Order: sequence, then structure tokens, then C-alpha cells
Amino acid sequence: MDAMTPTHDDKFSFGLWTVGWQGVDVFGTAVRPPLDPAEAVRRLADLGAYGITFHDNDVFPFDADAATKEAHLAPLRKALEETGLSVPMVTTNLFSHPVFRDGGFTNNDRDVRRFAVRKALDNLDLAAEMGAQVFVAWGGREGAESGAAKDVRAALDRYAEAFNILAQHAIDSGYDIRFAIEPKPNEPRGDILLPTVGHALAFINELDHPERVGINPEVGHEEMAGLNFAHGLAQALWHGKLFHVDLNGQTGPRFDQDLRFGAGNVRGAFWTVDILENGGYDGPRHFDFKPPRSEDMDGVWASAEGCMRNYLILREKSRAFRADPDVQAALAAARVDELAQPTLGAGESVASLRAESFDPEEAAARGMGFEHLDQLALEHLYGTRG
Amino acid sequence: MDAMTPTHDDKFSFGLWTVGWQGVDVFGTAVRPPLDPAEAVRRLADLGAYGITFHDNDVFPFDADAATKEAHLAPLRKALEETGLSVPMVTTNLFSHPVFRDGGFTNNDRDVRRFAVRKALDNLDLAAEMGAQVFVAWGGREGAESGAAKDVRAALDRYAEAFNILAQHAIDSGYDIRFAIEPKPNEPRGDILLPTVGHALAFINELDHPERVGINPEVGHEEMAGLNFAHGLAQALWHGKLFHVDLNGQTGPRFDQDLRFGAGNVRGAFWTVDILENGGYDGPRHFDFKPPRSEDMDGVWASAEGCMRNYLILREKSRAFRADPDVQAALAAARVDELAQPTLGAGESVASLRAESFDPEEAAARGMGFEHLDQLALEHLYGTRG
Amino acid sequence: MDAMTPTHDDKFSFGLWTVGWQGVDVFGTAVRPPLDPAEAVRRLADLGAYGITFHDNDVFPFDADAATKEAHLAPLRKALEETGLSVPMVTTNLFSHPVFRDGGFTNNDRDVRRFAVRKALDNLDLAAEMGAQVFVAWGGREGAESGAAKDVRAALDRYAEAFNILAQHAIDSGYDIRFAIEPKPNEPRGDILLPTVGHALAFINELDHPERVGINPEVGHEEMAGLNFAHGLAQALWHGKLFHVDLNGQTGPRFDQDLRFGAGNVRGAFWTVDILENGGYDGPRHFDFKPPRSEDMDGVWASAEGCMRNYLILREKSRAFRADPDVQAALAAARVDELAQPTLGAGESVASLRAESFDPEEAAARGMGFEHLDQLALEHLYGTRG
Amino acid sequence: MDAMTPTHDDKFSFGLWTVGWQGVDVFGTAVRPPLDPAEAVRRLADLGAYGITFHDNDVFPFDADAATKEAHLAPLRKALEETGLSVPMVTTNLFSHPVFRDGGFTNNDRDVRRFAVRKALDNLDLAAEMGAQVFVAWGGREGAESGAAKDVRAALDRYAEAFNILAQHAIDSGYDIRFAIEPKPNEPRGDILLPTVGHALAFINELDHPERVGINPEVGHEEMAGLNFAHGLAQALWHGKLFHVDLNGQTGPRFDQDLRFGAGNVRGAFWTVDILENGGYDGPRHFDFKPPRSEDMDGVWASAEGCMRNYLILREKSRAFRADPDVQAALAAARVDELAQPTLGAGESVASLRAESFDPEEAAARGMGFEHLDQLALEHLYGTRG
Repeated sequence: MDAMTPTHDDKFSFGLWTVGWQGVDVFGTAVRPPLDPAEAVRRLADLGAYGITFHDNDVFPFDADAATKEAHLAPLRKALEETGLSVPMVTTNLFSHPVFRDGGFTNNDRDVRRFAVRKALDNLDLAAEMGAQVFVAWGGREGAESGAAKDVRAALDRYAEAFNILAQHAIDSGYDIRFAIEPKPNEPRGDILLPTVGHALAFINELDHPERVGINPEVGHEEMAGLNFAHGLAQALWHGKLFHVDLNGQTGPRFDQDLRFGAGNVRGAFWTVDILENGGYDGPRHFDFKPPRSEDMDGVWASAEGCMRNYLILREKSRAFRADPDVQAALAAARVDELAQPTLGAGESVASLRAESFDPEEAAARGMGFEHLDQLALEHLYGTRG
Repeated sequence: MDAMTPTHDDKFSFGLWTVGWQGVDVFGTAVRPPLDPAEAVRRLADLGAYGITFHDNDVFPFDADAATKEAHLAPLRKALEETGLSVPMVTTNLFSHPVFRDGGFTNNDRDVRRFAVRKALDNLDLAAEMGAQVFVAWGGREGAESGAAKDVRAALDRYAEAFNILAQHAIDSGYDIRFAIEPKPNEPRGDILLPTVGHALAFINELDHPERVGINPEVGHEEMAGLNFAHGLAQALWHGKLFHVDLNGQTGPRFDQDLRFGAGNVRGAFWTVDILENGGYDGPRHFDFKPPRSEDMDGVWASAEGCMRNYLILREKSRAFRADPDVQAALAAARVDELAQPTLGAGESVASLRAESFDPEEAAARGMGFEHLDQLALEHLYGTRG
Repeated sequence: MDAMTPTHDDKFSFGLWTVGWQGVDVFGTAVRPPLDPAEAVRRLADLGAYGITFHDNDVFPFDADAATKEAHLAPLRKALEETGLSVPMVTTNLFSHPVFRDGGFTNNDRDVRRFAVRKALDNLDLAAEMGAQVFVAWGGREGAESGAAKDVRAALDRYAEAFNILAQHAIDSGYDIRFAIEPKPNEPRGDILLPTVGHALAFINELDHPERVGINPEVGHEEMAGLNFAHGLAQALWHGKLFHVDLNGQTGPRFDQDLRFGAGNVRGAFWTVDILENGGYDGPRHFDFKPPRSEDMDGVWASAEGCMRNYLILREKSRAFRADPDVQAALAAARVDELAQPTLGAGESVASLRAESFDPEEAAARGMGFEHLDQLALEHLYGTRG
Repeated sequence: MDAMTPTHDDKFSFGLWTVGWQGVDVFGTAVRPPLDPAEAVRRLADLGAYGITFHDNDVFPFDADAATKEAHLAPLRKALEETGLSVPMVTTNLFSHPVFRDGGFTNNDRDVRRFAVRKALDNLDLAAEMGAQVFVAWGGREGAESGAAKDVRAALDRYAEAFNILAQHAIDSGYDIRFAIEPKPNEPRGDILLPTVGHALAFINELDHPERVGINPEVGHEEMAGLNFAHGLAQALWHGKLFHVDLNGQTGPRFDQDLRFGAGNVRGAFWTVDILENGGYDGPRHFDFKPPRSEDMDGVWASAEGCMRNYLILREKSRAFRADPDVQAALAAARVDELAQPTLGAGESVASLRAESFDPEEAAARGMGFEHLDQLALEHLYGTRG
């Protein structure tokens, strides 16, 4: 099916750490060899991606000096040039090294916080140099396992301080880069700060440069909290804060599965694509998944390809759904559009509202027609309509 | 134990719908007779509460005219006067009647939205008249079971519109009342709008009068999403938005259990009281629980009494914990206070930060001492210290 | 699409309490009028169902005497005769009346237990009379909210006693009826006894007549515990104990949603149908769902129709998946069939097994090919293959 | 508090992999140096443990030959002798090496299955030699991420075959060893076979030597499925199948936290100890936890010590609870003991049961008194009684 072959315009990007994941988990060792970043770029280009993203230490070691960094960056740059792939997003690893055992920006230890900010600043310079438009911050180790270990209000102060420093540095340096906070409720910490889309959106309002900071929600992270991802995207868009997105798959509250996009909550994936395509988001469709440990490198590429195919399949379905006259009739019957109408008339006063007469029993008898509408959606998802 | 007998100064309040719950659920009918509001006031006063709260239709029927309302309010007022109990909070029932099958403020049907706003306005006037300082809004039916049924961005527009109307009415009427949004992730709707503390906090920033609106988080509602309630309280306090609180018990992601306070996540309850007592919150300690269906009225009062006793027990424990020199030493060893120190020195530049030398391997070797600290906390909770 | 129109041979059955649910929940009153059982039969027959099922009190009131029962049963029988619908399953309501506040068969109160057994015996006679082959037992109120309230081992003794009495009565009466236990982890009780498929299967082994007793798993009940429903069905089939099945939809650990079949975990629904169709189950495809409270009666019928359509759609997909040569090649590559081969050869000894040489590093390098295989499955589900 | 100092008679044991966990997780590298098994034995002996347990590869490398194994075992044996610690349980690592990427006993690849059985047989011989009474099998990689990858019924056949081979080998070798299956719902696989206590109990009934096989439930594993651990223990005891137990802490459905015992679901921990102490279990109290990555080695030992202290604290509380006359009165009022009485009288017939008259309305009015009873339990847990 040709329409399911990704092109540059589809804006698919992958983290180097996704196809490069060697399979180390709490219970087992690496199942796959290291993947050279330049090789990853070439293979992803072949598959139809338009960009790659990375943490600093996906490319060079934690303790690399300037020369070592450059030695690792040069072949990556070459591969990017040759393939035409871009680096729309860069992010910083503030979680793998043991120095971050209590986090980076909110580590109780001030020296570690200072080091974390420095590492992020260095990486921000690199991000700018690579042409990234978005700098993602996932604070995976910012949190606690127990109640007294972390003064959450102080931690939020430090978290805000770190974003203020970074944003100011971007401004001072003339970088055209925006920041995107990636929320997650737990794992690897017992409870992570800014656990959901909502908490991160609220936090941003307290920053010095809120206009520079948005969010990077991830399907699985919200679904780990039992939340509706498409609703989270919609609220983020409502706030004008959907700066980036991490697409993958999850099966409800449990460990962070990072399944390939489309292979988790299928119904949720449909609505995720529907809101991304129709909600005004025009950034990368970024995949942050982990090819299961069952796979060798062939399986890794099959998994990466599947992410993109599933997105394209669902995009087709969303278009067909929205174009279907039966759907349009069902939406009207469900009064979905009526919600766009203000509840008060233009210039209407509370007094006139209160004067209105209304028969609640009569109104209560009207069904909403949601089941019929959802059945149409489901049949589009199943591919038995259109 | 005298210290566990509640007094007026403890600011314990109960919803009339808590002790008055008759036990109707999806699978069964009422197990207890209706409870007269005035009787509830008297019994709660005897038990040591300082206030009661209510939905409009906890006191008078949905279709009551002015005379009927007054007929129901008069004996309640009398009981309040006689007992000295106050009504610190009032809330509106926009979820029980079938007219609210698709919600109130965000119902797809504009006529229903208008009716919902009217009902809330009427109830706001009553709240002011009863001397309430807080007007809680739980949008239990604002949400959806399926993706196409609700345009979430339009719904948030309407939700904001409703709060704007209510806040303006409070201002215009000179009411000294603040609004508190109560988040919940799901049940009775498949997904409810503003599902967590974070989502509600973010939403408030888009309102016309954000200073008038805060949140009313509920233990069980956050824990249904697997979130740490004390962390949610801390973030709300950090934003200056903890206007009210609903205390009860829950056992993780499942149906809304509304157990009595203290009888759910015991460890979480300790940290909940600790942050409420030490975080600057001075509003009511409000219980929103449901005496299990297993109980007759004796069990109902035992359950209500238990809520208050458990709070007082945990308050004692929190005090003892904070006063314990071993705890203070453990907090220092865990560098908890160091988090209050800004990461950058006063007036420090990025340049000086970057010039600093640091040995991450050496820093990485330092343990945080959190297990020792948490064990002390746990032994305070168990009552085997202090 | 003709193939999606249900026929008698598809063996679709519905509980009278499904389409008849009036919408009462913890937070709201009835949104729909009572539905006459005979009317339900006729409408379901029109839609293509082959049978209906019921609790005793879906048809006649809790306190009905013999004459009243018959007055309610007569029109139901008439409708069944006229439509040709059968009653493949009957179940007993031991949860709605307040007398069951602590359960039926395991109520702490012996008098209530005796009453519960009597009620079930009466209903068993009725089930036989109606021609039911399966007698389902959902112990929704058998459980507890707190630890001391229930001696679980004593409760299991009583639970077993009740099934022994019922099975003996069936044998003594010559009834060709088998029993099916329906597990559920929680709601309405805090914790329900026999919470999963596994616990019920284990329990059956301790009964006097284990051959008479199997299970009736429900999609949503297992998914409320985060379990894979198709895996549960497979284990039940492995034990020869899948006597009946309740099909509906759920979105992970949360309240019991009872969505229409297909409109929950879509990926799970595909594998559910796949194992039901290919695993040797030949009983009814029984829907136990609740048309959402948003719906009027038109929505109720749309919802019921959707259950059957979705099953048929997924059955088609499962057939196409299994017939697809690419799938067959992928299954072979993933060595799925190799699992059917015993690990030891016929008559092989431990000694010969131990003598074998094996290179684990070489074997470790082989990927399993599961991502490719699952992508094929997903594209069948999406309808973009075959 | 002297009573909180563990002694040999308390039967506390620890896995070498618990205090020896270096902190590698999906997102980070080791934070602690390797711990020498002999050193672990000595430290645990000092802390009051009576035994240690291990996987084969906790002591010697995966590819060790006989001489290498012995070189690693010798110092362990010496430490055991010197300290008097025993090895009550041994288990096999069939999950860390990449060869087990699709599991061991149920790997699709027959060669791997054969290797897994061989590895377990070798380890069973070692277990016998070390004097272990229990051989635990946690099938952490037995499962799947996707529906077609695993034929669950074939997998259960192979799973049973493996246990049959092992049990026969134990019998043939005259080993006084019993097997204990450890269930887990997910992580590291998407869905693990035999996901709960119930599924494992059911499975055992199909084995050749069911009397040799029981279960080893783990607190966190059941709570990851939202299940009540004490209820699971009670059902296992009811079946006579509680052969071993893994104690730790968890906070509901999420990743496998492996918190120290007592520091998770505190209320659940109380009932866990209560049933272990009063339910006839006399095996080791085995801790299977992971000292958080925040900790250095001091924190590791603090964490291990905390496990034992918390057990002893809760044991004291359970004793005080059961001895409290108010509790005994509350238990009687709640009719808890009445559940031990058979529902039918000795030799009573269904006919006589049916002849009994009963007033359900009168019985329905009686409350169960569970809230009062549970409040007493909670105050024992809080340490504010007795």
C-alpha cells in the first residue's frame, strides 16, 4: 500500500536511543550489540524518517572531553548530511549515571544540581548547533521513593530555577529553541515530579519565560496513570503548549512498556492521531519506543517501520472518519458542534439567563447518540467502513 | 486518649452526603434510611466537627420551588445555630439528575449548559447566604466514554466560560467566596475533564479571575490515577491554590472507594497530614467519604468518628516525627534542606557555573540515606518511636 | 455488509439486565424507563440474538410469591416462544437487596447464607425449567473492605459448601446444568473473593463435583486487574473449564465500565475472538455490558447491535489473519508451532538431556520475529490487509 | 526496643540478589559495587537473619564450568558454616541471559527449553546439596508482548512438562525438596504466564506430582494486579500450597518496586503478617526487595534491617490486636466466627433448608459493624492501642 510509505513530509523522527536500545532491563543484560548512530541515521532515512533526536550520551560517552565528543559527532553529522535527515530535537541524559541517583535539577545535593545544569547548558549549545528547534527535558530521576526524602515545594523551586537558567541562556545566546517538559508519573522513581501533562502545564506558568516552555507528552506515560492521552493532547493544545510529542504504545497502569506506536491501546492511538492531525500541531511525529528484547536487529527495524506505518494507517482512517457523511450526521445528532457555541449569548447578562424557562425532565429524556457515533468511529478503525 | 477527641479548632467538616449516603450503587439499592440534615448536623456536632457542607440537593429536592427550599433550609439553619456549626463550603449537584447525563457546564446541549450555570448561580447565592467561604465544583459528569463525543478544546472553553460567569457574579455580588475545582480522572464518566490536580491547576491560569479559583483535591481521586496525594498537595500549595481539601481513603487504581480517612493508603495518609499541617494550609479538614454499605447508622457514626480520630493520630505522629532529633539528623544527612538553597549563587552567572570543576564519580558514590530516614518515619507511623 | 448481520448460528446472547439497565449509579438516578423483559426479547430477536439470560430479579421482584413470579414469567415465555430465542444461562441476584450487604454464600450471618442458598436453589429449578445449560454465579458482594471483617479461609469453606449443595441438587434433580463462576477483583466490595480466572479455577478443584463447575470470565473483570483476557481464556480452556463467557469492554484498572464489546481494549478484543473461535469453545457469545448513561433507548439498541457487529468483524479478521500466508510464514519464523513439541523426546531421559551440547551465545543471537508477526496481526485488525 | 531485634527463630531469610542488587535498571547503570556473597552472608548474619537464598548466577557466572562453580561456592559455604546460616531456598536464573529472551521452560525454541530444563536440573542438584527445602521458580520471561507470539495452551503444556521433569528428578534422586511457583502479572514481559496466585494454584492441579508443588507469592506481584495479598495468602493456605513467601513493598499497579517490607502498602503489610502468623505457615519469612538506587551500602543494610524490624513490629501488633478484648467483642459483633459454621446443619437436607422461614427485611437492617472493627485494627497498626 503506497500511501503507507512514509515520506519526508510526514515528519517522522526517532530517538537514537530507541532503535539503539540494547535491551538492558532490571532483570537482564543486553540482547543486541551497540548500534552506531550514523548507521541508525542511514537505516532510518531508508525507512522514510525525516529526523533523528538524541540525548548527549547517545552519541558520546558521559566523560567525553571536547575532542572525544567531536570524534563521535563527526560521523553523525556526515550521516545527517548524506541522508538529509535533520535533528529537530535534542535532550539531555540526567538519569543514567549514578551521580543522578537522586535526580539532576532537583537533586538534594547542590553540587549535583550545578553539574546537571552545566550538562544541560552544554547540551543546549549542541542542540542549537545541530539546528534543533526543541529541547526536551524528561526528569526521570526527579522524584522520590519516600515522603521525607524530598521537599516537593523546594524541589519545584529548583526545577523552575533550572528552566529559568536554560531559557535565559537560550535567549542570551539567540537560540531559536523552545523547551518541552516530558511528564511521567513513576518509574524509575517511586513518584516523579510533574507526573502528568497537567502538572507540567501548571508548572510552566510559574517560570520566568513561560512562552519558551511547553510540553512533550508521551502516550505511555499518561496511560500509566490511566489517563486519556488524546484528552491530554487536547488540553495541551488548548493552552498552546504542545511543543513536541512522544508516540509509542502501552497497556494501562504497569511498567513503562514503550511498545511501538499503534501496538498498545489501539483505540487511543486512533484518537491520538485524530487530534494531532486536526488540532493544529505541526511539529515532528516523534517515536519514543523500545523494540522488545525478543527482537534482533531485523526486528528492531520492523518495529521502527511499524511505528510509521501505523501512524499513516491511522491518519487515513481519521481522514475517512471526518469525511464520512454518516459521521457528520452522527456528530450533529450528538450536538458535538453545539459545544463550540458560547453558553451565554453575546453580551447576555446573568439576569437574562436566570429569566429563562426550561423543562429539565423534557431535556433529560434526550439521548446523546454517542454509541452510534462511536460505533462509526470503531468501524473506521476496523477498516470496515470507507 | 483525650488528644484524639476533636474540637472546634481542629476544623473538621463533613459533607451531608457522606453520613447521609444510603448505599445505592450500580449493583444495589439503599441499605440505610434517609438521614435528616438537621439530625446529621447534631450528630456531627456531638462528635466534634466544626462544620458541614452540602450540595443543594442534599438539602432540598431538585425541583424545589422557593418555598420548598426554605422549608428544607429552615430546620438546617436551626440546627446550625443550636450547635454552632458553620458551613465553610457549598457545592452544586450537576450530576445526579438525568438532565446531566452528558455533564453540566460542558454538556453538548447548550440549553443544559445554561440550566447548569443557572443552578450553580442560585446555589452560589445560597452559599453566600450560608456564609460559605469556598464554592466547590466537581465536574463528575463533564467528560466522555468515547473519542468523538466530546470536542475537548471546546469543552474547556465552555468550562472556562462557566467559571468566568460564576466568578464575575461573585465579584458583582460582593461575595467573599472563592472557587475550588475538584479533579477526578474517571467514574462515573469514562474520562473526566481536568482529571488531576495538575490539569485543574493549569486550567485556572486561563480564567478571567484566576485569583478567585483554586482546587479541592481528594485523596482517592488522585490515587485512582496512581498519583502521590501529598505531592499533589505540595504542588497545589506551591501554586498558592490549595483552597480546600477532601480527605478519604482509597486502595490504588480501581473504583472510587471513598473509605474513611486513614483506612486506605496509610503511609500516604501520614504524608498527607504532614504536608497539610506544615505546608501553610489553614482551611477546613473536610471529609468526603462513604460509610460502606455493610454498615447501619451506628457504623456510619463510627466511620465518621474514625475519620477525625485518624487525622488527629496522624497529626500527633507528624509532630513527633518532625521533633525527633534522630529524624532531624537523618534529614540533614539526606541533604533535604540543601534543596532549599538556590542552585546558582546570588548573582552568579552561567559562565562562573561552567568554570566550576566537579568529580562526578566521587559525587556518585555518596548515598542519600533515604532508607534510614524513611524507616524512622515508618516507625513514627507504627507508633514504635516517640 | 451482510456478513456482519448476526444470525442464530452465531450464538449471541444478552443479559436482560444489559439493555434493561436504567442507568442508576453511585452518583445518579435512572435515565431510562424500565424495559419490559418480553419487549427486550423481541428487540434482541430482531437484532439477531439467539438467546437471552437473566437474574431471577430481572424478571420478577425480590419478594414475589409463586403467583407473582408466574405472572412475570408468562409473558417472557410467550416472547421466547414467539421469537424462538432460548435461555442458555440463568443467574441469581445475590447482591442488590440490602440483606446481601455482606454477600450471600459467604455472608458472616448464617441466616443470610441459608437464605442465599435457598434463593439460588429456587433459581436453579427455574433455570432447569427454562432449559438453561449454564448457571452462572457472580459473587459480587462476597468480599470485604477491611482485613478483620472476613476470615477468608472460612469464607472459601462456605463458598465451596454452597456450590456443593447446588451441584448435588442439580445431580439429584437430574438437571443437565453446569455451573460457571464469574470472577471479579473488586467493586462493589473493596476486595472480592475469587478475584480472577485463576483463583476461581483453583477453587473448583476443591469442590465435591468439580466436573460440574467451570468459569464465566468477563473481559472487563480481568482487565480491571491489568490481566490479559485472551490469556485467561486460554488457561481456562487448557483446564477444560470455559463453560461460558461475558463479553464487554474496559479501559484498564478503574471502575467496571461494561462498555459494549469491541469498544474498549480493541487489540485485546481481537485476541479474545481469536481464541474463542480457535480454542474449542462452542457456548454462547454472551454480552454483559451497560449502555452508557448518555444513551436513550435508541442508543441502547445501537449499543447492543454494536456488540454483535464488532464480534463478527473481529471473527472475520481472525479468519483472514490465520489464513494469510505471510502470517503463516511469520508464525513459523517465530517458531510458534515449535512450542507444541514436547521439550523431551519420546521416552527421553534426564541423562540424555544432560548430555546434549548447546551454545547459548549462538542461540541468544536469534531474534524471535515477534514484532513482524504482531505488525501483520495489527494490520489485519486495522483492515489494511486481506 | 529489644523485641524488635531479629533472632534465628524468626526465620528471616534474604536473597543474595537483594542486598547485592547494584542498581542497574532500564534507565541507569550500576550505583553500587558488586557484593561478595560471603560478605553478604556475614552481614546478614550480624543483622539477625537465619538464612540466605540465591539464584545459581548470583554465586557463579552463567558460563562457569565445574571448577569455577566450586571456586565461587567454597567461600560461600565457608561463610554459611561460620555464621550458622542456612540456605532454605534456591532458585534458578532463567531470565537474565539473552538466550532467555523468550523465556526458558516455555521458550518457542525447543533447544532453549532443553537448555533451561538442564540449567534448572543442575541447580536442583545444587539446591539439594545446599540443604534447601524449597526450589522456587519465577518464570519472569515466560510470556509475551503480543497475541500471536505465544500459543498459551501449548506454553502451559511445556510449563507443566518442565515441572514434571524436575519433580520426577527430585523424587528419583531422593531429594526432600518441594517446588514453589512465583506468579507475576507482567514486567519484564508484557504479560507473564501464571500471572497471579490463583493462576499458579490452578496450574498445579494438572501436574504429575501436585503434592510436590506449591507457590511462592510475592507481595508486590499481587499488588501490581491490584489484588489483596493477604487474601491471596489465605487462599493459598486453604489449598495447602503456601510453600514459601516473598515479602516486600509496592504501591499499587505500576512497575515492580520491590520496596523494603513494610514500606509500601502499610495496611496490607499488617494483614500479611497477621495471616502468616495465624494461618499455619511455618516456613521462612523471606525478603525479596531492592534497596533503592538512592542508597549506598550503608543504606542497603539499613533497608535490610528495616525489613526485619517492620515484620517484628507488625507481628507484635497482630498479637496485641488478636488479644484485645475490645477486638474480640467487635469480631463477635461482626459475626466473623459465625462464618466457620457450616451453612447447612449436620445432615441437613435441601428440603429442610427450603422449609425455613426468614424475613429478609429484618435481616437487611442489621449492620455488620465492620467499620468499628477496622478502626480498632487501624489503631493497633498506628500503635495508639495496646
